[in-house]
Amino acid sequence: MTKVFQERISKLHDFLTKQELDAVLITSPKHVYYLTGFFTDPHERFLGLVIPAQGEPSVIVPALDRQAAAEASSVQSIYTHTDTQNPYDVLKQALPSGLTKLGIEKSHMTVERFEAMGQVIAASSFVDVEEPLREMRLIKSADEVARLKHAVVLIENALTETLKTVKIGMTEMEIVADLEYQMKRVGAEGPSFSTMVLAGEKSALPHGTPGTRQVQAGDLLLFDIGVEADGYVSDITRTFAVGEISAQLREIYETVLAANEAAIAEVRPGVTFAHLDKTARNIIAEKGYGEYFMHRLGHGLGMDVHEYPSVHDQNEETLRPGMVFTIEPGIYVPGVGGVRIEDDVVVTETGVEVLSSFPKKLTVIG
Amino acid sequence: MTKVFQERISKLHDFLTKQELDAVLITSPKHVYYLTGFFTDPHERFLGLVIPAQGEPSVIVPALDRQAAAEASSVQSIYTHTDTQNPYDVLKQALPSGLTKLGIEKSHMTVERFEAMGQVIAASSFVDVEEPLREMRLIKSADEVARLKHAVVLIENALTETLKTVKIGMTEMEIVADLEYQMKRVGAEGPSFSTMVLAGEKSALPHGTPGTRQVQAGDLLLFDIGVEADGYVSDITRTFAVGEISAQLREIYETVLAANEAAIAEVRPGVTFAHLDKTARNIIAEKGYGEYFMHRLGHGLGMDVHEYPSVHDQNEETLRPGMVFTIEPGIYVPGVGGVRIEDDVVVTETGVEVLSSFPKKLTVIG
Repeated sequence: MTKVFQERISKLHDFLTKQELDAVLITSPKHVYYLTGFFTDPHERFLGLVIPAQGEPSVIVPALDRQAAAEASSVQSIYTHTDTQNPYDVLKQALPSGLTKLGIEKSHMTVERFEAMGQVIAASSFVDVEEPLREMRLIKSADEVARLKHAVVLIENALTETLKTVKIGMTEMEIVADLEYQMKRVGAEGPSFSTMVLAGEKSALPHGTPGTRQVQAGDLLLFDIGVEADGYVSDITRTFAVGEISAQLREIYETVLAANEAAIAEVRPGVTFAHLDKTARNIIAEKGYGEYFMHRLGHGLGMDVHEYPSVHDQNEETLRPGMVFTIEPGIYVPGVGGVRIEDDVVVTETGVEVLSSFPKKLTVIG
Repeated sequence: MTKVFQERISKLHDFLTKQELDAVLITSPKHVYYLTGFFTDPHERFLGLVIPAQGEPSVIVPALDRQAAAEASSVQSIYTHTDTQNPYDVLKQALPSGLTKLGIEKSHMTVERFEAMGQVIAASSFVDVEEPLREMRLIKSADEVARLKHAVVLIENALTETLKTVKIGMTEMEIVADLEYQMKRVGAEGPSFSTMVLAGEKSALPHGTPGTRQVQAGDLLLFDIGVEADGYVSDITRTFAVGEISAQLREIYETVLAANEAAIAEVRPGVTFAHLDKTARNIIAEKGYGEYFMHRLGHGLGMDVHEYPSVHDQNEETLRPGMVFTIEPGIYVPGVGGVRIEDDVVVTETGVEVLSSFPKKLTVIG
């Protein structure tokens, strides 16, 4: 694996050269992991990877992470700082002297840290390095697609197990507890986001919170769920019928399913994200539910649950092989219920591979 | 509860007046919750609470959160933005016109957002509002202490249940899975941080990651665990002996326990955090393990697992009633094993109340 990390650091170094930077400072734990193989959650402590224009990269880690960093990181030069040191004094040692132009992660570094760093590091110009990182991450390697697929398999296995136990009278939170237990049991590190199980009228809240609402006959039961495994995540949504549901809910379901399938059928290199979004949105609008689909069609998926690309009707970028994203149309009628059906897809050389395979035909449970 | 939120917003308004700000912009989900009662995780979307010098506060939420915000927020003026709008254009409507001095959360706002906001919002000066928020949060109300205690009770209940199932041969991850299931079962929303169960030599990694290491006789088994419930968190550590452990591990355990108890005995208004840290550190150093206690004694606890105060040997601030923090000395001998014993305490008018009550006498399990 060390070669992978060297290649990624090398791509960032190309950006550094082009932008005439003296060094790049990476501070997000995920990108330190992506570029070195070492992951740690430093909480409020400082973590950094320095890639200088000349010489070898180094990492700056909290003292208590020294051993873990030495074991996992492909970058072997390790600086440490204790809780009572100013980490920017340590950072300064790792940076080239006479530094004037520094690459930083502007979408990760806070204004507070930026100002604190500025007290010690006298660079005159700061350049955002998100773009080369985003560009690298946008196109997944075969290894990354395999990890994403693994994360999808795990959440589908967990959902399969949990559905066996769902019964009328259970609360949303009880189902969440069982799902998260199954996630671990099937081998995931844990949920990749706050597990969402919403019943009945609560399914109409796109960002609702599971609570003590009990599952009843006639409900829609919506699962928006995913796991993290080996640093990569899944994110799928399935909506089920609990016993007999109304004709309106059934129509909503079939409309969302048609939108989901139509959008997936359009996935191939060269089409735009806007086209995918509009394909789904038109189907929903034609049935009169346009105003109830108030979010974008999907989002990129990788180490993060929300990353590039953004699949919405203004994004005129075109799909390229190796891109991975969600397709998740929904209809949410306040007080009545909501349906969302979400798949994870990868763009292939010729079309699409759908990573998720959990059945989508309307299924009655409970 | 609306009164609580009004009082908190009013305290922030006092700061605004003193600093002659035109408005304060709150952007962290926790602080929006703390000040309005409405919680949402907006992911990469923009969320804001605007408190103007003149007039009523308002919140800016993603369009799909409108209904949830209307139901939960004590602030009734709600602006929304869709995924294809520039949220700062919407923010501008909520801010006073002719704004020059804006309070922001510098430890939450990223450099990227700061620059994007600067394209639309033409303030000439930005003042950090962390200090009044930190000051408010530092002293917990009776309601907050009750919530913290509840979170402690829940994690102790979960630990009690899980310990019944721990057996030689189980992996760390299997124990984590059971613990997190129990957390939900006893009524918590979920873990407040990545659940840590470390066996044997892995217990010597203060930030180790649970894996497939199986529990063996002679191991130390370390649990660093906590839950979130009603917006507040717990964070406790207990270390157990699996069968017969070596005399050295036993000595380490007794030393850490003595350090933990000695530090707790010093908690009362007026003493310094440095004194607490040194009290524990001296006991460990006297036994010759000084170099193996390489982190601070503890950290504040509240809505976050790591918040103010920081309990370390350079912090000469004094304890005040209502402060809540952890006391967690540890000894970590690489390749041998580690012990940490962590309690959550609140400073009272006369001394200390220890929120955690899980037994600390060396206990053999498995």
